Amino acid sequence: MESVSFPLLSRVAICGGTHGNEMTGVYMMRHLQKEKIDKIGSVAVSTVLSNPRAVEVCRRYVETDLNRCFTEALLNSPVTDSTPYELRRAQELNAQIGPKGSKEAVDLLIDIHNTTSNMGLCLIFYSIDWFTLHILKYLQSKMTSVEVRAIQLDIPISEAYSLESVGKHGFAIEVGPQPNGVVRADIYNMVKEAVDHVFSWLQEFNSGSTFEEGEVEAYTLVKSIDYPRNPVTGEITAAIHSQLQDNDFKLLQRGDPIFLSFSGETVKYDDEDLYPFFVNECAYYEKKIAFHLARKIKLTLPPIKVTG
Amino acid sequence: MESVSFPLLSRVAICGGTHGNEMTGVYMMRHLQKEKIDKIGSVAVSTVLSNPRAVEVCRRYVETDLNRCFTEALLNSPVTDSTPYELRRAQELNAQIGPKGSKEAVDLLIDIHNTTSNMGLCLIFYSIDWFTLHILKYLQSKMTSVEVRAIQLDIPISEAYSLESVGKHGFAIEVGPQPNGVVRADIYNMVKEAVDHVFSWLQEFNSGSTFEEGEVEAYTLVKSIDYPRNPVTGEITAAIHSQLQDNDFKLLQRGDPIFLSFSGETVKYDDEDLYPFFVNECAYYEKKIAFHLARKIKLTLPPIKVTG
Repeated sequence: MESVSFPLLSRVAICGGTHGNEMTGVYMMRHLQKEKIDKIGSVAVSTVLSNPRAVEVCRRYVETDLNRCFTEALLNSPVTDSTPYELRRAQELNAQIGPKGSKEAVDLLIDIHNTTSNMGLCLIFYSIDWFTLHILKYLQSKMTSVEVRAIQLDIPISEAYSLESVGKHGFAIEVGPQPNGVVRADIYNMVKEAVDHVFSWLQEFNSGSTFEEGEVEAYTLVKSIDYPRNPVTGEITAAIHSQLQDNDFKLLQRGDPIFLSFSGETVKYDDEDLYPFFVNECAYYEKKIAFHLARKIKLTLPPIKVTG
Repeated sequence: MESVSFPLLSRVAICGGTHGNEMTGVYMMRHLQKEKIDKIGSVAVSTVLSNPRAVEVCRRYVETDLNRCFTEALLNSPVTDSTPYELRRAQELNAQIGPKGSKEAVDLLIDIHNTTSNMGLCLIFYSIDWFTLHILKYLQSKMTSVEVRAIQLDIPISEAYSLESVGKHGFAIEVGPQPNGVVRADIYNMVKEAVDHVFSWLQEFNSGSTFEEGEVEAYTLVKSIDYPRNPVTGEITAAIHSQLQDNDFKLLQRGDPIFLSFSGETVKYDDEDLYPFFVNECAYYEKKIAFHLARKIKLTLPPIKVTG
């Protein structure tokens, strides 16, 4: 396979606290800022606490979900008196580490998230980007304590709504299970290890190493399933079934139990075989998502190296 | 041992949503209210969603922690324009299912809570009350899926600050781990089973059964340990160590690691052997509690039966 080349990397942003109650990124940003980390080898590093007001009150967001504000339309919308705090902040971040889609944007943007779902460590990304996928492959080879998975959202970059879409390359690191508002040492250390490996990879890349061709698996989002709800009040009437709870990425097949109602009835799955993820994620109750379903895909990566 | 007698039980309150983001009780109250459960055998049952405004926004509380408002001093304090919502609500609940310390108060008050700590199912109570302790012993004999533990807070009832202190007898059912804002079917079913057993016990008691003498263990609170903090900003500088995380009720001994700082240093325990609980409870970050420490005690129960 012919190798693909990318320019030297000069600027990276690492972000946390995009959701103010996802504590791994919050404490990691505070730590990196206290240690005044602004350079790793030849790469300038910006550490960004994305939503300081939400962090202050330990909530996902103050007025609207910041991590849904990074579409091109929203980033370019005029600011008025009624513009929510998070949209103003998204435009501020876009000026600071973007602008999205421009040559001034950071070369790589990593955004750290937590989930209450038992998802281990996942990279979430939009387009099929050989650069991100080579980092994934590297992390899979280096991290022995956890299975590193990849989730692909098939959305054009202009409509991509989350912070990582502002970088030339970018991904979210999504790690769980961790309750909102809580920091767990095991998860903190897992993310710290992943970030250290990413920085090692960047330095190897910049120094001219070729990363050989290979294959990776990813999960591509197919659809989302809502909780059973009371049609009048909208309140949920069933919880995720114990056989699905904590079983993210285990193939769901027709007839498998998915919900248990509060009066004791089981609801079974009745569709094609797919992989559930974000099972019982706290923040998705309001988004009407009990879990997502994905198809597994295999991607063949070309070798990559730095340009010239 | 001479038997102790208590009057017939005519009225019980079961409460949930005292903390608006602890979902087991919230969904259980909604379910019981939908099913119009108001009597079990000869016992009148009040189902109470304690903090509806906090439930609505899925937060622990709106203005102040409701479950710290039930001291006699606060319940009898005058209401002014600046009285927080939760203190007004506490006085309202006290009128409805109390008043605390009066003969009108419900015979038994059960308040359902969740914790992010790995505590299994615990009954929390104030004074040494043979009635509550016999229910504990009964639950321990009936529930096979979980170890049922008891936590005693040695506080005079007039200063007892939580909702269960409003009943003639009362206890909190504290169950975890469950993230705030999330309902897990396994935990919901565990609490439902416990509540069903309590109601069976009440009916056996009212029908004249004698509950024989016996022994139970309980954990009595000794002190609380805060996180290491930055002395200037007050921000925590370490997480619970992985060896302590999820190990509630496992004896902590001198030299055991308790914290891991965000720069990698381990802090060790340096005090008498005690039992940790509420390890890494989300809501206790703001209360400056990383974990509580308890001593184990053994209590010998007299036989009990209904009066007359």
